[in-house]
Amino acid sequence: MTFDILRSPLRFLEEVLTELPLQETLRAGEAWWLREGKAISDAVDRAGTPWLQMFDRNGTRIDQPLFPPEYWRMLKRGYREGIVWRAFEEESLISTYLLLYANSFYDPGVCCPYTVSLGTAVPLAKYGDAELQTRFLPQLLRKDDSVCQGATWMTEIKGGSDLGANVETIARRARASSSENRWLLTGDKFFASNVGAELAVVAARPEGAASNVRGLALFLVPRVRVNGQLNYFTRRLKDKIATRSVPTGEVELRDSEGYLLGSADAGIYLILEVLNISRVANALVSVAVAQRAMSEALAFAERRRAFGKPILDHPLLRRQFDERLCGLRRAFALAWEAVQLLNEVWQERPPYSDRYHLFRLVAHLAKYWTAEFAAQTAKWGMEVHGALGVVEEFPVERWFREAMILAIWEGTAHRQILDGLEVMERKHAHRLLFERLAPAASAQELQQMQSRVEHLLGLGPEKTGEKEAQAEAVFTSLAAFAAEVLSRSHPR
Amino acid sequence: MTFDILRSPLRFLEEVLTELPLQETLRAGEAWWLREGKAISDAVDRAGTPWLQMFDRNGTRIDQPLFPPEYWRMLKRGYREGIVWRAFEEESLISTYLLLYANSFYDPGVCCPYTVSLGTAVPLAKYGDAELQTRFLPQLLRKDDSVCQGATWMTEIKGGSDLGANVETIARRARASSSENRWLLTGDKFFASNVGAELAVVAARPEGAASNVRGLALFLVPRVRVNGQLNYFTRRLKDKIATRSVPTGEVELRDSEGYLLGSADAGIYLILEVLNISRVANALVSVAVAQRAMSEALAFAERRRAFGKPILDHPLLRRQFDERLCGLRRAFALAWEAVQLLNEVWQERPPYSDRYHLFRLVAHLAKYWTAEFAAQTAKWGMEVHGALGVVEEFPVERWFREAMILAIWEGTAHRQILDGLEVMERKHAHRLLFERLAPAASAQELQQMQSRVEHLLGLGPEKTGEKEAQAEAVFTSLAAFAAEVLSRSHPR
Amino acid sequence: MTFDILRSPLRFLEEVLTELPLQETLRAGEAWWLREGKAISDAVDRAGTPWLQMFDRNGTRIDQPLFPPEYWRMLKRGYREGIVWRAFEEESLISTYLLLYANSFYDPGVCCPYTVSLGTAVPLAKYGDAELQTRFLPQLLRKDDSVCQGATWMTEIKGGSDLGANVETIARRARASSSENRWLLTGDKFFASNVGAELAVVAARPEGAASNVRGLALFLVPRVRVNGQLNYFTRRLKDKIATRSVPTGEVELRDSEGYLLGSADAGIYLILEVLNISRVANALVSVAVAQRAMSEALAFAERRRAFGKPILDHPLLRRQFDERLCGLRRAFALAWEAVQLLNEVWQERPPYSDRYHLFRLVAHLAKYWTAEFAAQTAKWGMEVHGALGVVEEFPVERWFREAMILAIWEGTAHRQILDGLEVMERKHAHRLLFERLAPAASAQELQQMQSRVEHLLGLGPEKTGEKEAQAEAVFTSLAAFAAEVLSRSHPR
Amino acid sequence: MTFDILRSPLRFLEEVLTELPLQETLRAGEAWWLREGKAISDAVDRAGTPWLQMFDRNGTRIDQPLFPPEYWRMLKRGYREGIVWRAFEEESLISTYLLLYANSFYDPGVCCPYTVSLGTAVPLAKYGDAELQTRFLPQLLRKDDSVCQGATWMTEIKGGSDLGANVETIARRARASSSENRWLLTGDKFFASNVGAELAVVAARPEGAASNVRGLALFLVPRVRVNGQLNYFTRRLKDKIATRSVPTGEVELRDSEGYLLGSADAGIYLILEVLNISRVANALVSVAVAQRAMSEALAFAERRRAFGKPILDHPLLRRQFDERLCGLRRAFALAWEAVQLLNEVWQERPPYSDRYHLFRLVAHLAKYWTAEFAAQTAKWGMEVHGALGVVEEFPVERWFREAMILAIWEGTAHRQILDGLEVMERKHAHRLLFERLAPAASAQELQQMQSRVEHLLGLGPEKTGEKEAQAEAVFTSLAAFAAEVLSRSHPR
Repeated sequence: MTFDILRSPLRFLEEVLTELPLQETLRAGEAWWLREGKAISDAVDRAGTPWLQMFDRNGTRIDQPLFPPEYWRMLKRGYREGIVWRAFEEESLISTYLLLYANSFYDPGVCCPYTVSLGTAVPLAKYGDAELQTRFLPQLLRKDDSVCQGATWMTEIKGGSDLGANVETIARRARASSSENRWLLTGDKFFASNVGAELAVVAARPEGAASNVRGLALFLVPRVRVNGQLNYFTRRLKDKIATRSVPTGEVELRDSEGYLLGSADAGIYLILEVLNISRVANALVSVAVAQRAMSEALAFAERRRAFGKPILDHPLLRRQFDERLCGLRRAFALAWEAVQLLNEVWQERPPYSDRYHLFRLVAHLAKYWTAEFAAQTAKWGMEVHGALGVVEEFPVERWFREAMILAIWEGTAHRQILDGLEVMERKHAHRLLFERLAPAASAQELQQMQSRVEHLLGLGPEKTGEKEAQAEAVFTSLAAFAAEVLSRSHPR
Repeated sequence: MTFDILRSPLRFLEEVLTELPLQETLRAGEAWWLREGKAISDAVDRAGTPWLQMFDRNGTRIDQPLFPPEYWRMLKRGYREGIVWRAFEEESLISTYLLLYANSFYDPGVCCPYTVSLGTAVPLAKYGDAELQTRFLPQLLRKDDSVCQGATWMTEIKGGSDLGANVETIARRARASSSENRWLLTGDKFFASNVGAELAVVAARPEGAASNVRGLALFLVPRVRVNGQLNYFTRRLKDKIATRSVPTGEVELRDSEGYLLGSADAGIYLILEVLNISRVANALVSVAVAQRAMSEALAFAERRRAFGKPILDHPLLRRQFDERLCGLRRAFALAWEAVQLLNEVWQERPPYSDRYHLFRLVAHLAKYWTAEFAAQTAKWGMEVHGALGVVEEFPVERWFREAMILAIWEGTAHRQILDGLEVMERKHAHRLLFERLAPAASAQELQQMQSRVEHLLGLGPEKTGEKEAQAEAVFTSLAAFAAEVLSRSHPR
Repeated sequence: MTFDILRSPLRFLEEVLTELPLQETLRAGEAWWLREGKAISDAVDRAGTPWLQMFDRNGTRIDQPLFPPEYWRMLKRGYREGIVWRAFEEESLISTYLLLYANSFYDPGVCCPYTVSLGTAVPLAKYGDAELQTRFLPQLLRKDDSVCQGATWMTEIKGGSDLGANVETIARRARASSSENRWLLTGDKFFASNVGAELAVVAARPEGAASNVRGLALFLVPRVRVNGQLNYFTRRLKDKIATRSVPTGEVELRDSEGYLLGSADAGIYLILEVLNISRVANALVSVAVAQRAMSEALAFAERRRAFGKPILDHPLLRRQFDERLCGLRRAFALAWEAVQLLNEVWQERPPYSDRYHLFRLVAHLAKYWTAEFAAQTAKWGMEVHGALGVVEEFPVERWFREAMILAIWEGTAHRQILDGLEVMERKHAHRLLFERLAPAASAQELQQMQSRVEHLLGLGPEKTGEKEAQAEAVFTSLAAFAAEVLSRSHPR
Repeated sequence: MTFDILRSPLRFLEEVLTELPLQETLRAGEAWWLREGKAISDAVDRAGTPWLQMFDRNGTRIDQPLFPPEYWRMLKRGYREGIVWRAFEEESLISTYLLLYANSFYDPGVCCPYTVSLGTAVPLAKYGDAELQTRFLPQLLRKDDSVCQGATWMTEIKGGSDLGANVETIARRARASSSENRWLLTGDKFFASNVGAELAVVAARPEGAASNVRGLALFLVPRVRVNGQLNYFTRRLKDKIATRSVPTGEVELRDSEGYLLGSADAGIYLILEVLNISRVANALVSVAVAQRAMSEALAFAERRRAFGKPILDHPLLRRQFDERLCGLRRAFALAWEAVQLLNEVWQERPPYSDRYHLFRLVAHLAKYWTAEFAAQTAKWGMEVHGALGVVEEFPVERWFREAMILAIWEGTAHRQILDGLEVMERKHAHRLLFERLAPAASAQELQQMQSRVEHLLGLGPEKTGEKEAQAEAVFTSLAAFAAEVLSRSHPR
């Protein structure tokens, strides 16, 4: 087995997809990364968390992260390439996710802004009224460097898993008795990625709404008020261990102007639709990070010698490469399935089709499985480098740091498992999944898997605790099974 | 099951050991860490790699890492406690390793100096001539802050796995025709932990010796020459991701004065004896780091709430705690077996007893298994913290960084597997292991395991590659099996 | 002339003061700095701005700068020594300022907390009602490590010179119609030194008060509300170039509980009394920093050789040392005059005596002159070190950084000159000064100086601009003259 | 007086020079700095000292500072512009120094590489044999990004003032008995600017040469050996307080290949000729840094308000701007005189003309005076900013750091004074200077100045110490006088 496809995201995509659109763009992009981008990405990671300049010399609050100029060049290139605008022009997410894969091999952090910009544009286009769309949508879809960025801010200090209980941001109408769609939001967002974005979609609770998940609504919040002042404040940037090419901060909303998207009582659906987009992105980026870690390990193992030959030629290590490459194909197959399903359902609105529920299950499986694969692969990549793997001078330990963030963003493993359990219980999404897998699986293996799942789901209400406790083992098996079966129909 | 024993290394030791010596010292130590040491350790980690001051203002080369003063207070306390001197006074390593466990729960980095100081004192005491012992040993065994430190430097730029090929440091006699035991060493050591130590044991090749593993010898190299000048230079400190409380650097030996330990042609045995000490330490420290990561996760999970209750009370997470605590007990049982075996054989010299070979196998299994457990546990601990797990402000991601260094130091997994394979092939050490495990294991499980091992070893010379390739799976199973069986006889 | 007195603040004080009280304490302090403190101070400076931990893991806002533990040991020692409590116990500021001098030679940053703690205790003791004093004063005067710290926060984003216009913090009564002394303050303090202090005195404008300097009042603001929550927030720490042993931050007051000190319409007097204390401290600390820079230059010049001898023996450099030592004595004489005058008037309340106005003039001259002397001396000290002077590894450039902060804190040169001009114009303070200087000055030089001053002051209202423009030259001469004349009566 | 010319180096040059060549290039350059370069320069300064990557992943020594890619873009642009190649193509240094001025307003650090590259090319072109010139000169004069850089390394650990005693680097012939111009150099250079340069000129002592200044020779040392290996090693980069856009390091020469330039016994002349080039550059860059600091202060003072108006409109501050602008013109006049004289004499070889000695005196005066002016101006600029001046977030304190390095590089004030004294004593260069100044000066002031100088020089041999001690005061007056008189004939 040759490992050459590990060296380039483009070659990997060519190999694992039956047909690969957008080849010219992908090729040009890869050439740019090799010529300029890799070194920029390394420098941005090395520089760590940038300073946040809160005031200019005149005392005006500006809240500007002090990135080196080339950061902006790296970032804007992806927008120009079409990660966001193509979704609308092509009425398909395929190009978007292909570009995310290709770019995140070189810099996973920068894919966060792209994803959350898409996650802003989509609900605006689906649920924003005509005035909002006219005012804000074109900015997000520009094809040049004047493009505006989006952001999606949900999580607050008490945690992101239980949004229903933990969102304490309150929205009240700007004018009490008016029906005008203008609100003032007050609250703190604790992990606000891409702070500084010109637009954000923000989860908040209209004054008086229920204090559970039904009381949430989604608002569009611009960076600048109508009167030209800052509309939200960045309290500080987080000192994250990785994804340093996206500034994540704490955002203070203080009577910040916002515009309701959709109806106030369907907010939670809109929020979940936004999360769908980033969850799938997270899965695909995880695969790309795993590939990158493997490519670094490969480059090292080819050159490093021990006992008279390159360490790649030692059977134990070669076996690990073989197995991990299979794992990479499987992880990709699962993530790509999520992409394709999302592409079918992203325009749906509640009430959703069965296809949507199948998508949700696959997205949970993919997010969970690929993040775990990425973290384990990056850890292994460090080990292949031996002691060089833990020295910051070498770009090796970075991929582990990046992978760990992917494992945690967009819901940790616990979240995926429990939400996956729910969509199986309530919507029987697993049955749709087994139908989907059937053509490529043997009847026996299908049946075995299915009975494990059904047994779990069949645990009665008196055994809820037991059901949750056992869920991890079953969910893991199901993810592995789905990934393996799906990869069978990918070309190799 | 209560998780309280996770909170303190002392309580854990009390629970898993039938009898626990040294309790008063351990209790005083723990009190110190809680009162002062934890905060010092946090600050040292946060400060990152210290500057290396190479020259004083007068232009004299000094090569001094600029640690904050409290670093030295933290470090010296462990020596005073007896991590090194007790081994000689008590003629036993038990106290040493108990203290290593207890201290590394709070700061794994600081245990490296202790271990390499022991790894310097032991060969000096076993193999040094009378003059060397008189001159150097008492310094290492002082009970106050004037104690000197040791260091063990083997690895060079081409890597540490294949020392036979990769050690390029040359030793020549200080006076060509003399038999005086004074040598001049020239070469570069690439991962030199505890640079600045007053004494180091160093692998080098006497001029003219074979260019393989048989040509290596072990030398004692002091920091200061007889004439008062620096005897070795520290080219720089490594920017490591963790263990920042031990300065690891690149050492330049330039006609550095050294003294041969033992005979020149038995050097490789001496080197391996030194590695034995640190490999066992590595295993035990890994368990301590895993415990620490769990204790942090516990403290968080008790307080963090989601869906109306602490997340610790969610069945999925509680199940993970249960299982991981079992895993911790098993990992400890395996590591402690290695300690006890080492304590039986550390005074042996070649040719070694069967007991020594059993020790070697157990040490490989323990180093491998505990490091993996520590890394996985620390990763899980980050995930329990959700997004807080990847923010440098919180002392969570640190434990993963620490664990990854443990996974790589003293030989990566590959090394343990292949060396473990060798000691089974050549010395049949696995048979001794199965005997050791027999009383606590069922005949059936023993037999199953044994036949897997024997099948692997039985692969003929034409299948060497296949044997190596399959070794990982078998070795992993063997380690898991041994850990599980050994833990059966530990109290709980 | 021997330069030995440069090496120790204690020896310098012994030489320049006729009698030196508190010798035992000063001696013990110096011994501590040499034994432990210097290395701690170096490490704190090297570490740069600490992280501000805003939340604990439970999501509770804590706003805690993450200093290494030994920082707190260094800091608390000065309080125990009596920098604050002695002022009250001895009813004199002499000990306080002696201790400030002695400590700031080793760490000028740490003297800021001491000074602002005193600046909090004094107005509380003078103007606080009985209840406030009982509740808060004892905490500030404790003699052990449980001592509380104070802070003095005036400056806002628009600048500190023109407080009358620039203080935008508003205080309103906690209960609108009550006469209870409880207020709620809202506003931002931009250069808030010693953030984290348990108590602060804060300039604010009672709701409805005049929007000029008369509308200001002084409030006591504790760190913790009556209900246990944080009472003010630290938005962030400033990345200052020096004085890293005092955390300076931006403070957000948000309905923060405060207590009015004195009457609302005399607030500006209270504020200026607080500034008096720190302005004099600034002058004395500047002299200490200049001495320190000279002592470093001396240590270097004695050892560094060029053209066959130590550079100290080169006539050009030796001449510079001679002249600068004279300059140091003069700067001290001027600063000490300010101390002694303050000690006479610190208990005064408006309307003030003539003595108070003389004090004000001397304080402006001293603040201005000593800061300039410190900056120039530290710059020269760097130059003496040649290229080593600009390398961060060596503790040389630090003293320049420290000096520059002293030049800017407590009013830049412009401020001192213009305020000095005002106290001469309005209160004829220069005439009192000339009386004070007369015994040690010749009639001619006195007269010459006096006529320059009177000429400046005599410029009519149509020449206000010209008067201000010329003020610098006259003020500089006056400061130099006063320093020189005052130093004549100091022992040498 | 309008301050507008402070805002741009181009406008300042237009105003103070009678005619300004190269306008188009200067204009394009300024546009680039405003559009891209300023932000790059800020980012490079903010990033601090870069890591030095000593090894690649294959263990090959590479000694590469890890700058962000845009650093290289910023650096290479100046070479393309012609800072080096124009000197040879135009046979004049005027363009070079104009470009240095214009660029160093935006980034003084980057002007160091340009200057030392010129300082490498000039002696190579003047003294290198035909083979050396053919081999190396074209690389330094390329007009595209493939241009090679030079470096000039003289100073060693014991200091740079007394090169005669302190250069310990030894050069021996590569083949003992051959006359081939190939040498092997061994020694350490302690402040080696622009480490990583493809070529360096290096002061060393041929084996057996005198141990004083006569024994020095100048060698050309390439970065890469004939066999492709590194020819010199970079031990580490200095953590400098400024000029972070030039990597300054410690260089280890270890049998490094070098080529003698000129004859071995005239080495000191060659070394001084190299220093001439950088000394004049230092003077001009100092003026540019002073202008930059003033432009920053201006921008602030126009916007910052106190007492109802911009602080620039306060008479005291405005007077300071007026006076400092006069000072800037004078400093430029003096520096530009040095440029013009150098341009007349740079092709001379020993024995030198009187013109050369006049140049030397002017160069000492200019280096001394402009550096002091820059440092004082930058300090004042910080003070204008008040507290913002000491916060690293704002680009204010940077100019002081930059200025301090200029004050120390290329000889501190002491060095300039004593060397200036020498050229007056030995070569009567002051007389030529007074002739030069006569047309623009009154007879009386000339005479006054002249008699002070002659009196100093007339102090007999028994008063050498006194002469040196008094030299500073006289030299300072002479520099101020020359600057003032020279500025009279510059346009305004």
